[in-house]
Amino acid sequence: MRELLSKYYKLLEEIKSLKGIVALLSWDQENQMPPLAVSSRAKQRGLIEKLVHQKLTSSDYIKIVFELNSKKELLNSIDSRSVSISNKEIIKSLKLPSDFVEEFANLKSKTQQAWIDAKTNEDFKLYQPLLEEMFEYTRRYAAYIDDSKPIYDVLLDDYEEGMTTNKLHKIFKELKTNLKEILKKVKAKESSHVFTSSIFEKNKTEKLIKEITNKLGFNYAKGVLGDVHHPFETKISNEDVRINVKYSEHDLAFTLTGAIHELGHGLYEQNISHKYEHTAFSEGASLTIHESQSRLLENMIGRSKEFWEFFFPVITNYYPELKNFTYEDATNDLNIIKSTFIRTEADEITYNLHIILRFEIELMILNKEIDIKDLPQVWNNKMEELLGIRPVNLSEGCLQDVHWSIGAIGYFPTYSLGNLASAQLWHKFKNDNLDFKNKFKKGDFSSYFNWFKNNIWQYGSLYTSEEFLNNSTDEPLVAKYLIEYIKEKYL
Amino acid sequence: MRELLSKYYKLLEEIKSLKGIVALLSWDQENQMPPLAVSSRAKQRGLIEKLVHQKLTSSDYIKIVFELNSKKELLNSIDSRSVSISNKEIIKSLKLPSDFVEEFANLKSKTQQAWIDAKTNEDFKLYQPLLEEMFEYTRRYAAYIDDSKPIYDVLLDDYEEGMTTNKLHKIFKELKTNLKEILKKVKAKESSHVFTSSIFEKNKTEKLIKEITNKLGFNYAKGVLGDVHHPFETKISNEDVRINVKYSEHDLAFTLTGAIHELGHGLYEQNISHKYEHTAFSEGASLTIHESQSRLLENMIGRSKEFWEFFFPVITNYYPELKNFTYEDATNDLNIIKSTFIRTEADEITYNLHIILRFEIELMILNKEIDIKDLPQVWNNKMEELLGIRPVNLSEGCLQDVHWSIGAIGYFPTYSLGNLASAQLWHKFKNDNLDFKNKFKKGDFSSYFNWFKNNIWQYGSLYTSEEFLNNSTDEPLVAKYLIEYIKEKYL
Repeated sequence: MRELLSKYYKLLEEIKSLKGIVALLSWDQENQMPPLAVSSRAKQRGLIEKLVHQKLTSSDYIKIVFELNSKKELLNSIDSRSVSISNKEIIKSLKLPSDFVEEFANLKSKTQQAWIDAKTNEDFKLYQPLLEEMFEYTRRYAAYIDDSKPIYDVLLDDYEEGMTTNKLHKIFKELKTNLKEILKKVKAKESSHVFTSSIFEKNKTEKLIKEITNKLGFNYAKGVLGDVHHPFETKISNEDVRINVKYSEHDLAFTLTGAIHELGHGLYEQNISHKYEHTAFSEGASLTIHESQSRLLENMIGRSKEFWEFFFPVITNYYPELKNFTYEDATNDLNIIKSTFIRTEADEITYNLHIILRFEIELMILNKEIDIKDLPQVWNNKMEELLGIRPVNLSEGCLQDVHWSIGAIGYFPTYSLGNLASAQLWHKFKNDNLDFKNKFKKGDFSSYFNWFKNNIWQYGSLYTSEEFLNNSTDEPLVAKYLIEYIKEKYL
Repeated sequence: MRELLSKYYKLLEEIKSLKGIVALLSWDQENQMPPLAVSSRAKQRGLIEKLVHQKLTSSDYIKIVFELNSKKELLNSIDSRSVSISNKEIIKSLKLPSDFVEEFANLKSKTQQAWIDAKTNEDFKLYQPLLEEMFEYTRRYAAYIDDSKPIYDVLLDDYEEGMTTNKLHKIFKELKTNLKEILKKVKAKESSHVFTSSIFEKNKTEKLIKEITNKLGFNYAKGVLGDVHHPFETKISNEDVRINVKYSEHDLAFTLTGAIHELGHGLYEQNISHKYEHTAFSEGASLTIHESQSRLLENMIGRSKEFWEFFFPVITNYYPELKNFTYEDATNDLNIIKSTFIRTEADEITYNLHIILRFEIELMILNKEIDIKDLPQVWNNKMEELLGIRPVNLSEGCLQDVHWSIGAIGYFPTYSLGNLASAQLWHKFKNDNLDFKNKFKKGDFSSYFNWFKNNIWQYGSLYTSEEFLNNSTDEPLVAKYLIEYIKEKYL
């Protein structure tokens, strides 16, 4: 048994190394690869992805994992969870014909390019046929994996183990009703324009972000700060976690909230226990819990008065011209509620309505209740219904997100689930750390770091989202904490 | 035949893609990888290198290449050269037992680490046993490849096809005698300290280098400027060539000459013809010719009056404090002849004596005429004999270069061969472009770009160094042009 386990972990390590290389190829592409290298990079990436698939479905690996999985009662809980995850991954891989995998991969590159073209030219027709094909391939994908289940349930399972469409309907209904009620009552606030009052040079802002992220516990001995077009976090290896920032010279709030969001992901990945590094769950894989950590740091902490009482003077060291403003001005500006077209720029309340819009539209398309050709119209109508505003162009409407073009259908809901989980965990954190505000004000964020490291980060994805929440908060995922948090903060 | 060729090029493309990934893994390590990721990166690199070796020695690939090689008379010259190179690569790979390959690779990582430790601690004993092993493995390597040839001939062939120890002895003898004579006669010049008179911030210097490299023809649509500890150029794919600069805030000459040197390599790689992109010679593989291009740009052009007449005013746009100086001051400072300990900082004359020193020592060690334990002593004695100065510590003496620690033994001579070739090509270029000085002064470097693109760059390594020189200059490699160039410039 021990020998079998050691063979399993050796093969798993190779698979993880290769996945890390894929992550690097893609990180490098975002960060500095020259534009003409796109197609040779696609080949390099395809080559390694094919290798990963070959290793995942090699008879050697399959035999070992299946045998271990059949004897799970003899394994300790760590090995058992790792084997389960690998077993599930293999079973999914085996269900997909390799021709289908290759075609789907090709479709994704082509669709992403078409999305860019359509967006640049404000011409939906350039995208429409490929998007239709993408949804068709997604239906086929779901059928290969499990044709006895509703399509959307199969898709959700890739991003959030155990989540179902029915559960989502229930949660989102409660959320939608409440948020729309709250929106009606929120009072409009004036902006002080703190974060748009100057020009914010990349070099200075980069140093500022290094200082903030250091203070909050990011370890640059095993981390990197990148510079990209769309903020994201990525892991090249256990000792190489990269948070990537999109710098705006005109809007420091945009740059900073983005950086703090990715930092939440990065802290999670950097603080998975050494004990689990060799396992299949040494990454924060459950998207709901992962997103809860980025949203919690971005919103509950990164938009709080205490945070800015400490960090605003730090900012004025880099940008003395902001000394005209107070930290209260800064906090005010970061908490203005206002319907906007772009999801990634939305406030804490309307953000979730953006997600619900996408969820409802994805379902309608998958169930063939609407035609792709009507998508711009449907999108705008729904936007008006949920947020009371109507986009005037496609880039601020249905072409704003990359997700569908890269095949990430069924992914959006995890953003809102992450928001719910963040409020639920935040509620518990506050109960366990009554004095946290006084400490934050003074720049002591150790209560935050330690509580989340102990309760969440160290475990990677040893637990499912449901288990994490039950363990830490004694409840499954519920909407009430987010609703309470928003009411308390904004009403 | 066509089908066989197409299979061959498909497999070759995969091998080249994987080699590009190795280059990226190493580039990223130099540029931004966090320090704790060293060992996981080594695993990733090892994994891909193993894959390259597996692909190179797979029965499929071998069968195809051998068959094509046996029918070379039926191939056109392009396919024939590509097949020859691949055939040679396979034959070398097959001669090495795979255990030996793995052990040698491990020894290289260990020795590189020991070199760093020894250098940091100024303690040769930390390095000595591993360096002994390294030379022993190098002897074994040469014996595996061809035990009928002198060891050094076998090693040279890896870096410079067709070069032999005897030819080198002859060339270096002529060079040594002449350079030592010249050195006695060169008059000492005073430095104006142009390039050390201020603090040169990385951000500004980076922009300056972008402007210079752009002007000289580097294409940033398929190129990148990196920031590293030791300057180098690397190729991730045909459309992704990276020149990497070490920035010194205190010595702008060091930064710029390094950047211009790497630019010479980069221009070569970027301008290989599309016709050859799929072949085994789509990289400037012959080190003599490759180095001739970097040295020519760095020395013949980058230290010339005409170059600085145009570029000095550009520099003062970034660093107005240098307006106290003239472009003549700048040129003067870049052409001061003075014996120094460090090869990479040496002037055009003494540089070659540094190389001859290394060549002579390598030969003595390989032939067991000296003991590794006496290396520091032997080094210092030779330095005194050749350059009239004696190092006082190891980092300025025998521990200054990385090469031996990574197994690059027999590599150094190509640096001087590159210098010879650069002078020989430069002589021909001048004859073909009588008006070049007037054009350079005005910032028109097209004569340089076009001549070298037409005569060298476009061909990659379609030709050997000898063929290149015969084609372009109607002579084999000779020492006289470098000696003449130096005499004319410095006496």
